[in-house]
Amino acid sequence: MKGISILGSTGSIGVQTLDVVRLHPTMFKVAGLAAGSNVALLEKQIREFSPSIVTCSNEKALEELKQRLSDYARPINLDIRPEIAATAPEADLVVGGLPGSTGLEPTFAAVEAGKDVALATKEVLVMAGALFMELVEKKGVALLPVDSEQSAIFQCLKGNEASPIRRIILTASGGPFRDMPIQEFEKVTKAQALDHPRWKMGPKVTVDSATLMNKGLEVIEAKWLFQVPSSKIEVVIHPQSIVHSMVEFDDGSIMAQLGATDMRIPISYALAYPERVESGTEPLDFPALASLTFREPDTTKFPLLKAAYQALEQEGPATSIVLNAADEVAVDLFLAEKLPFKDIPRVVLGELETAESAHLSTLADIMEFHDHVISRVRRRWDR
Amino acid sequence: MKGISILGSTGSIGVQTLDVVRLHPTMFKVAGLAAGSNVALLEKQIREFSPSIVTCSNEKALEELKQRLSDYARPINLDIRPEIAATAPEADLVVGGLPGSTGLEPTFAAVEAGKDVALATKEVLVMAGALFMELVEKKGVALLPVDSEQSAIFQCLKGNEASPIRRIILTASGGPFRDMPIQEFEKVTKAQALDHPRWKMGPKVTVDSATLMNKGLEVIEAKWLFQVPSSKIEVVIHPQSIVHSMVEFDDGSIMAQLGATDMRIPISYALAYPERVESGTEPLDFPALASLTFREPDTTKFPLLKAAYQALEQEGPATSIVLNAADEVAVDLFLAEKLPFKDIPRVVLGELETAESAHLSTLADIMEFHDHVISRVRRRWDR
Repeated sequence: MKGISILGSTGSIGVQTLDVVRLHPTMFKVAGLAAGSNVALLEKQIREFSPSIVTCSNEKALEELKQRLSDYARPINLDIRPEIAATAPEADLVVGGLPGSTGLEPTFAAVEAGKDVALATKEVLVMAGALFMELVEKKGVALLPVDSEQSAIFQCLKGNEASPIRRIILTASGGPFRDMPIQEFEKVTKAQALDHPRWKMGPKVTVDSATLMNKGLEVIEAKWLFQVPSSKIEVVIHPQSIVHSMVEFDDGSIMAQLGATDMRIPISYALAYPERVESGTEPLDFPALASLTFREPDTTKFPLLKAAYQALEQEGPATSIVLNAADEVAVDLFLAEKLPFKDIPRVVLGELETAESAHLSTLADIMEFHDHVISRVRRRWDR
Repeated sequence: MKGISILGSTGSIGVQTLDVVRLHPTMFKVAGLAAGSNVALLEKQIREFSPSIVTCSNEKALEELKQRLSDYARPINLDIRPEIAATAPEADLVVGGLPGSTGLEPTFAAVEAGKDVALATKEVLVMAGALFMELVEKKGVALLPVDSEQSAIFQCLKGNEASPIRRIILTASGGPFRDMPIQEFEKVTKAQALDHPRWKMGPKVTVDSATLMNKGLEVIEAKWLFQVPSSKIEVVIHPQSIVHSMVEFDDGSIMAQLGATDMRIPISYALAYPERVESGTEPLDFPALASLTFREPDTTKFPLLKAAYQALEQEGPATSIVLNAADEVAVDLFLAEKLPFKDIPRVVLGELETAESAHLSTLADIMEFHDHVISRVRRRWDR
């Protein structure tokens, strides 16, 4: 039995991870769960999967959880520190699905404790790619991407360890505004931005898909995960989201991973790696598919994609951290209906232009710099 | 340096193999060449690649070759037995590209001699799949498919050794008559049948592509190569021939291999395996691609595809041998303009209906049975 801890168990990735675990009761055992404040769902997960260690994000939620579990008879350790779930002794693999910068410290803690990591939190690599990859290598743990695109690339590289990569081709659905003229961006509503045509995801990543910032962050992730220069990472718009990404090798051969737009595929791959197990998804019916099309991204309409490449040109993580933090605040303000959609790139590009350099050599440095930038961007734009 | 012997060096596969070898003079050395009677081209190949052993298919061609090489100073062993080239002491890998049943004995001889084999001759697996795979396993040699579809499947399976296969999806261009109404098959000319929309190949395989017999033979090949039941092998029409084939695993994930329609990609893969090397092909430009489409094959129009599945339902190789031999004769008669295109399936299906069972336990049994069926079919239809 493989012991699994899930960081972000009540979020989209966490719930779907448990869907896969449920299919394989003799293969996986839930060791730990770390959640935010959705205590009602967390209680259900505890009663179904009997983890030994469970955390929620604050004392109030913890108190409520304790009350709800007053009749619960199994041994359980309740805490507010997600690191406790991330380093649970029974965990072999930790699924890192906490949102945003909250995911960094627990994910680093999991690797420090020698756990394999199934990584969904983009910010770990965007904010601290070099540091994280160094630690992963030092600890000799397996790092399995959960993001559908990064999982696709990982699968394409599998078995090709001896082959130089000519380019990575990251596919992007193009989001809900792919075909909208830029003039109409002024009128985009929150509901429109949250209505992603292909994937069901959390609100932050859904808005990021609408601006293509999400794809930019994935370019940064891919650079670190697969140790390739950004000049070898291409983004191509593929509206049908059937081809999840591709790798071209020096012989001109391209490996691609295809499948339904269902996160249970990359999740099950990361959980069972190096095997593959039933994920609960339907097989693709090729004759029933619409035709698969590809086109270049429009970086005039979606300048944040280009901004990610520019961030990677700078030495050190500071510029990527500014990019990420500015986007986090901008999306937050948009979701609070305090910033129009069309101004998300304005905020991010404005912050990038004035981004300072900073010497950030530890995770603590990185977290401090991130908090500092978040406060500054918020002060500047939350009016 | 990897020593390579090429069986069928003046054919389409042989010439393209030498194109790849030419790109990597410090990586590959030509040990042996076996050709038919195209002595002029064979002479050029000898002068360029300096093999130690060269064979052509008959005494007359051999005499001509000797005359042409009267000024040739390097040591060279000339013979009419392709087995001599197939077992050349300096050969590590033998490319099996001899056409039709002539490929069987030399390819078996290469494996017997412990050589890795890059296999292009379909008949080896169609006529003697069980026997050949048994020998490959016994000798512990690497078997690398050169056919673009089988190479694609092989590449998709690489790195997934621990994963059960849900299905193999063999793609087919559909050939030149994909969209022609069956009523017009009566008027098909030799020139039309030889005008393949995507691939440049020899005449036999080009006509087989037009009837979908080629895809049927590939179903049989795939069954033996990848040791899966035919119920797990699906054929899908993909007119653009960009996706060369796919494998779906139990998690719903599909690995696909894509590329230009250029045989140098699978050839270079087989030559350099497990590495990949420059093949001389252009990278795919995804935004410039037409859309990729998929549909079910029409087995009413192309009954030979279904016939291959039916042949696999029979015990032993006899039915596959009859299928293959009947098709060989029918295509030969069509190319000689003695049989109309529409009658190719009539010949093959007619022969299949009256196919005898036969106990064939050795390669000699198989060759004898094949010759017997060829003669019989020819007597019956060459009028």
